[in-house]
Amino acid sequence: MIEVCLLGAGGTMPLPGRWLTSLLVRWNGTQLLVDCGEGTQIALREKGFSCHQIDSIFLTHYHADHTAGLPGLLLTMAKSERLAPVSLYGPKGLQELMQGVLAIARYLPFELRCIEYAQRENTFEIKGMKITAFGVKHSVPCFGYCFDYPRAPRFDAAKAKKLGLPVNLWGILQKGNAVEYEERQYLPEEVMGEKRRGIKFVYATDTRPVPFIGEYACNGDLLIAEGMYGDKEKQANALENRHMMMQEAAAIAAGANVRKLWLTHYSPSMPNPGAYEQEVKEIFENTLISNDGAFCDLSFSEE
Amino acid sequence: MIEVCLLGAGGTMPLPGRWLTSLLVRWNGTQLLVDCGEGTQIALREKGFSCHQIDSIFLTHYHADHTAGLPGLLLTMAKSERLAPVSLYGPKGLQELMQGVLAIARYLPFELRCIEYAQRENTFEIKGMKITAFGVKHSVPCFGYCFDYPRAPRFDAAKAKKLGLPVNLWGILQKGNAVEYEERQYLPEEVMGEKRRGIKFVYATDTRPVPFIGEYACNGDLLIAEGMYGDKEKQANALENRHMMMQEAAAIAAGANVRKLWLTHYSPSMPNPGAYEQEVKEIFENTLISNDGAFCDLSFSEE
Repeated sequence: MIEVCLLGAGGTMPLPGRWLTSLLVRWNGTQLLVDCGEGTQIALREKGFSCHQIDSIFLTHYHADHTAGLPGLLLTMAKSERLAPVSLYGPKGLQELMQGVLAIARYLPFELRCIEYAQRENTFEIKGMKITAFGVKHSVPCFGYCFDYPRAPRFDAAKAKKLGLPVNLWGILQKGNAVEYEERQYLPEEVMGEKRRGIKFVYATDTRPVPFIGEYACNGDLLIAEGMYGDKEKQANALENRHMMMQEAAAIAAGANVRKLWLTHYSPSMPNPGAYEQEVKEIFENTLISNDGAFCDLSFSEE
Repeated sequence: MIEVCLLGAGGTMPLPGRWLTSLLVRWNGTQLLVDCGEGTQIALREKGFSCHQIDSIFLTHYHADHTAGLPGLLLTMAKSERLAPVSLYGPKGLQELMQGVLAIARYLPFELRCIEYAQRENTFEIKGMKITAFGVKHSVPCFGYCFDYPRAPRFDAAKAKKLGLPVNLWGILQKGNAVEYEERQYLPEEVMGEKRRGIKFVYATDTRPVPFIGEYACNGDLLIAEGMYGDKEKQANALENRHMMMQEAAAIAAGANVRKLWLTHYSPSMPNPGAYEQEVKEIFENTLISNDGAFCDLSFSEE
């Protein structure tokens, strides 16, 4: 229902066999990308996704390992004859970045719409998905993303019958609209059952492990978080450069009671992130030491 | 002696398994790159070259498949702790392009020196290599490159003896300097033998097959040329977008009497460039339908 693909799992620079961290989300006929480092368009193609349908691009921050793939991606979208506008979202400085991107990728046939964040928390809605950009803690302004896809409560036919509402009005109420019937207004709340769990996932890189990552991810289906280093001797580097250790990400996942954790954004100095799997799983069992192309299809769950 | 590596053989956009056309040249302790599309830094690493030592970057033109790898490459060079300046050469517009590159790749610790071409022919000398940028015919201003590494004539000991020059002065003359001996000046020409063949190779993409490509490449060791299409039905596309057919490149190689031809810059619409090998070899036998990483080490030849 909501397809989520981590196109790459690398940080800092692309390596042979390790693309840079970037997330593709596909739902309701739209595609959204978070971050776009050098090579992202090749990773997309490798995984069988089309560049053509990317309607929105969210950027966490403006270090080049999250942005340098934009000129190539946008030009490839142009070559696929896309004409529809593309919306770009990111911290302050987006206009300036995009001027740079356009000095490399000239003559795009579609409009670019830039939305710069004015606040620490910014909320958008795209095709039924609520997307919250929240400030995290990196060496430059940087945002995490919380994706929330709500599920409507079940329609309670018994309540509707009891109110004496004819069946042809049920659908209107079910879609969340009020109806008038025999000179009285009926609200959706009157015929709906209890709230139901939607789908929620959070993407957070590059950042120190600030508590509100867990607050946004709380009880969510998936947390995708930076695990820049696994070796505890690198803790000082993580602190200095405002990155997150694998163990720190796992502790957030455990505290937030998420269903699963995908680690990503590995340092090029870490050739085998899997070496820390056991240690990390002792903190949070359902951790995936992601490779490029980690994929899942998130659906509403019955509970 | 002069290592030449075609890092990629693709044009227009990078594909899984096909990097964009870019040439690495290594000689006398320096490395030079021609063109730098998205992914070039990964291709370099795959082939075992270090980004650190790239002292000069020559650009043919400013379409993104030849430039979009610059931010990532320069930042990776920065991360390898390079501090020495990097020289960039290209047609008019280089400053503007580099402003864009620097909006993506911020905080470079080394100086960038931009050399914009003022003429249709521009000559530079780097570590004994004469490099000529010559205007070709594309949809935007575009330059080919001729690399010329001259070989000093052999020292003729018989001539030196006949002139009565003591042996300790021979080395000075051999290096091309004049000497004074017994109140007369002696010039190198007086003690040197006949001219000897140096090393010459030409890189030409993206362009229609203009005659002066062959004039520069004439009798050279290697011509690396665009072969955007092999299918003759694409001739109209080649004409319209100012690109070169494989067969046209082979005809230049044959006319110029080069030793070998490497084709490159294949259209993404051509999944198997090797399909045209036989046809192209009928025009010029010593043609390589290059893959990524085509490599040769050019040396002075005895003849």
